[in-house]
Amino acid sequence: MSETGAAVLLGTLADAGVTTCFANPGTSEMHLVAALDAEPRTHAVLTLFEGVATGAADGYARMAERPAATLLHLGPGLANGLANLHNARRAGTPVVNVVGDHARDHKPLDAPLESDVDAIAGVVSARVHRSTDVARLGEDAADAVAAAYGPPPAISTLLVPADVAWSTGGERGAPRPVAPVGRGMLDADGLESAAKALWSGEPCTLLLGGAGLRGEGLRAARRIAAATGARLLAECFPTRMERGAGRPAIDRLAYPGDAARAQLDGTRHLVLVGARSPVTFFGYPGKEGDLVPAGAAVHGVTETGAAGGLALEALADLVASGTDPGPTADLERPGVPTGELTVWTAGQAVAALLPEGAVVVDESITAGAGLARPTVGSAPHDWLTLTGGAIGWGPPAATGAAVACPDRPVWNLQADGSAMYTLQALWTQAREGLDVTTVLFDNGAYAILRAELLGVGAELAADSPARALLDLGSPRLDFVALGTGMGVPSVRAQTADELVDALRRAAAEPGPHLVVAQVPPLVP
Amino acid sequence: MSETGAAVLLGTLADAGVTTCFANPGTSEMHLVAALDAEPRTHAVLTLFEGVATGAADGYARMAERPAATLLHLGPGLANGLANLHNARRAGTPVVNVVGDHARDHKPLDAPLESDVDAIAGVVSARVHRSTDVARLGEDAADAVAAAYGPPPAISTLLVPADVAWSTGGERGAPRPVAPVGRGMLDADGLESAAKALWSGEPCTLLLGGAGLRGEGLRAARRIAAATGARLLAECFPTRMERGAGRPAIDRLAYPGDAARAQLDGTRHLVLVGARSPVTFFGYPGKEGDLVPAGAAVHGVTETGAAGGLALEALADLVASGTDPGPTADLERPGVPTGELTVWTAGQAVAALLPEGAVVVDESITAGAGLARPTVGSAPHDWLTLTGGAIGWGPPAATGAAVACPDRPVWNLQADGSAMYTLQALWTQAREGLDVTTVLFDNGAYAILRAELLGVGAELAADSPARALLDLGSPRLDFVALGTGMGVPSVRAQTADELVDALRRAAAEPGPHLVVAQVPPLVP
Repeated sequence: MSETGAAVLLGTLADAGVTTCFANPGTSEMHLVAALDAEPRTHAVLTLFEGVATGAADGYARMAERPAATLLHLGPGLANGLANLHNARRAGTPVVNVVGDHARDHKPLDAPLESDVDAIAGVVSARVHRSTDVARLGEDAADAVAAAYGPPPAISTLLVPADVAWSTGGERGAPRPVAPVGRGMLDADGLESAAKALWSGEPCTLLLGGAGLRGEGLRAARRIAAATGARLLAECFPTRMERGAGRPAIDRLAYPGDAARAQLDGTRHLVLVGARSPVTFFGYPGKEGDLVPAGAAVHGVTETGAAGGLALEALADLVASGTDPGPTADLERPGVPTGELTVWTAGQAVAALLPEGAVVVDESITAGAGLARPTVGSAPHDWLTLTGGAIGWGPPAATGAAVACPDRPVWNLQADGSAMYTLQALWTQAREGLDVTTVLFDNGAYAILRAELLGVGAELAADSPARALLDLGSPRLDFVALGTGMGVPSVRAQTADELVDALRRAAAEPGPHLVVAQVPPLVP
Repeated sequence: MSETGAAVLLGTLADAGVTTCFANPGTSEMHLVAALDAEPRTHAVLTLFEGVATGAADGYARMAERPAATLLHLGPGLANGLANLHNARRAGTPVVNVVGDHARDHKPLDAPLESDVDAIAGVVSARVHRSTDVARLGEDAADAVAAAYGPPPAISTLLVPADVAWSTGGERGAPRPVAPVGRGMLDADGLESAAKALWSGEPCTLLLGGAGLRGEGLRAARRIAAATGARLLAECFPTRMERGAGRPAIDRLAYPGDAARAQLDGTRHLVLVGARSPVTFFGYPGKEGDLVPAGAAVHGVTETGAAGGLALEALADLVASGTDPGPTADLERPGVPTGELTVWTAGQAVAALLPEGAVVVDESITAGAGLARPTVGSAPHDWLTLTGGAIGWGPPAATGAAVACPDRPVWNLQADGSAMYTLQALWTQAREGLDVTTVLFDNGAYAILRAELLGVGAELAADSPARALLDLGSPRLDFVALGTGMGVPSVRAQTADELVDALRRAAAEPGPHLVVAQVPPLVP
């Protein structure tokens, strides 16, 4: 008897290098679940909510540099994962969504779970394909993986009717060749005008994103800066940034518009390498959303993150040939803090204790104010951020990063309000025994919204009922209980010393840990 | 100074009777939050995740018979709420979604949170409208509410750019008249052929849904049955069903296809009154999805739930004029159980102790096997079910039902796997001091999927890695810790006696309670 479509699908994915599957299956995916037993290459990771599965796929691919699959149940299951797919889309992360659907002859019956799954998929996917014939499923799966690899990497969604999965008669599709990122992804005119700008002696800022913040791209950026005096700035929310000792200290563009404008003030030439032209996150009354300084010229070498590294190397070849950028920053950790626990001392504790090779998954929002500066001299690490602004990304992304990098410690620096969107990820961390330390900044508020309320000019009295909508304090969430309930050893730190102790203990023990850092909100 | 658009919007909603708002606001909704202070009629209920807000709006409207508003943040926020909006759509529940969007001049900048919010809204909404001018916002809001009221009641989504909300110069829209459910919503031919069928003496089954399972509709159904001998059957997953002492004992169509076929076997005429023609939930290899018995005639009086009551009254006028249906069922509670705690003794405990006037929110899945039969003689109650099959509905819907009915006890009979989708609802229950008793059936598994796996013919060995994807036991979720962490008093019951004690204590104390009933899975 030949393989079921489900087995053909899993085999094709594995042949193409997609061997991790973050799964929330339902009835229409039962044959795909059953097929796992015959495909030992596939590591299926169960999550308790689809937003965990999709966020994990994002975190996984940012670190593994190849896509994971998700296994989702019909339109509602995909919808539950949509917000973190939005973040993945904004990060340029490859993901292969395998979404089960009703059997072909069942779909017209408009059963209770029927919905417009194609429309939902279209919101985030570069490619959506519905497989309608088991004889084609192998080829469809290979094409779906190819669309995820790109370049540019993207979200690819394959809709699989249940009967296509349970039928037999198909064959695996051969892996498609993966095209490398090439010169064709760069804007030749932009490259030339950027080079001229860098030679001009006028103030230039290179806005770096995507692969421009890692490895060869980062080295090329340093050469360009050394040769031309150009300033290096990272986009506000990078997909993945190499930082710490041995890497250049590059500020990120600030989130508040006024601060970002101040950073860019005086720039005459803004060169985009793997980053989009900068805009504020939101519009505010009477403020410009476009952050390009008045009168500055924009030189777009590439806005595609995946081509950021190649773009910097090409630019360095033009303007910094033979330039030695000089020594990199030394390891310069701050001492461990003592006394009161605030976002500043918490940042110092993280910077002092961050292990070498750590993957930092940063959804710290306002509580992260104290993190950037002291961690410049920390042990070398990768820093992942909330690219798309859809909160509830941190715990899932940390889960996926840890699956991708079993030999690296993952630190999830996490805001409380955002954590409550997808806290179920802790259970998957426990189930898989992942080395994730979640530092949960518990400030009892949606502190960012207090700041945004001021930003949009909407003023409230301190005892305003509306203001209560920005508070998390009544009742106060007990994150130690919540983490314990998910099976993760959890402790609370109320002083800097307690935080240091807790982080040291977490680092010394295998498996996940939750450290609840109780800090006053940055915006009172 | 005239009102902001935000104030105009809230005022228009309140004038039209929409005074409850389940909210997850972000930056683009800050003026709407600020406007709450000037609109004391509006009760804003904060949730920690949008799926809680939308599920609460569903539960609220099922009980209040008028829509609540949701306040959601951009495309990702709406996406997070989509699964429970799917359930609301399937229930025929009215909801007014107010979704903030970027300011009009910010939207073209493609900022990080930009997404195709119109497409996301379209998946679940009968009407989507984007407000583009503060001068029109009041009329837009009044139209949005009118679309939600229907009839038929539906989901209506209003997209509000931030600058439309913060601008001034608009005026409130006058409430639109709400049309009553009328004869025009019935199929005159179906009514006539149904009457003929009921007169024919051949075996007839009335499949009841929507308003056909309540009040006058239910009384008319009893008269029809008494006069014609027709059998009464409720749709598989009713929006809201009146049950218990004083109401007729009506079985629901079974979920497993074979059981449903057995129920309908022998029926020559199937009369649809507020229900759709029955189909199985999923397709299975070699099985029919259509549940209409071969050779049976289908008489569609109305498939619209809202018209189900009117349809039954019209039918009763034709076939049961002057019929007295006789006495209703007496109160006949089972005794409280003792000994081992199983889904059967748990069902008995619920039936024995369910308070008069309770609202039951049932997402018990397999653990609910023991509930239906003994609760027939319980104190009179309303029973709400998972109409759309998108799990994670129970705790949010219970929250909304309790907001709608502050004087009625709400019992959420809840499966464990589904609870983990939206457990954050417990915090809102604690924050609002809602009288919700959650009976959480903790069986440590996605037991329904074990059954479905057998149903689709996908067999697994007991030690199969794939089978592990259906288990929740490693690590075992500690729901007492999770409930406590959310601020809800939580206890575990491991025997029937402990469950009885816990339910009695919960009933005696105000505010929410979580009772974790540890039961063996129905499907081992």
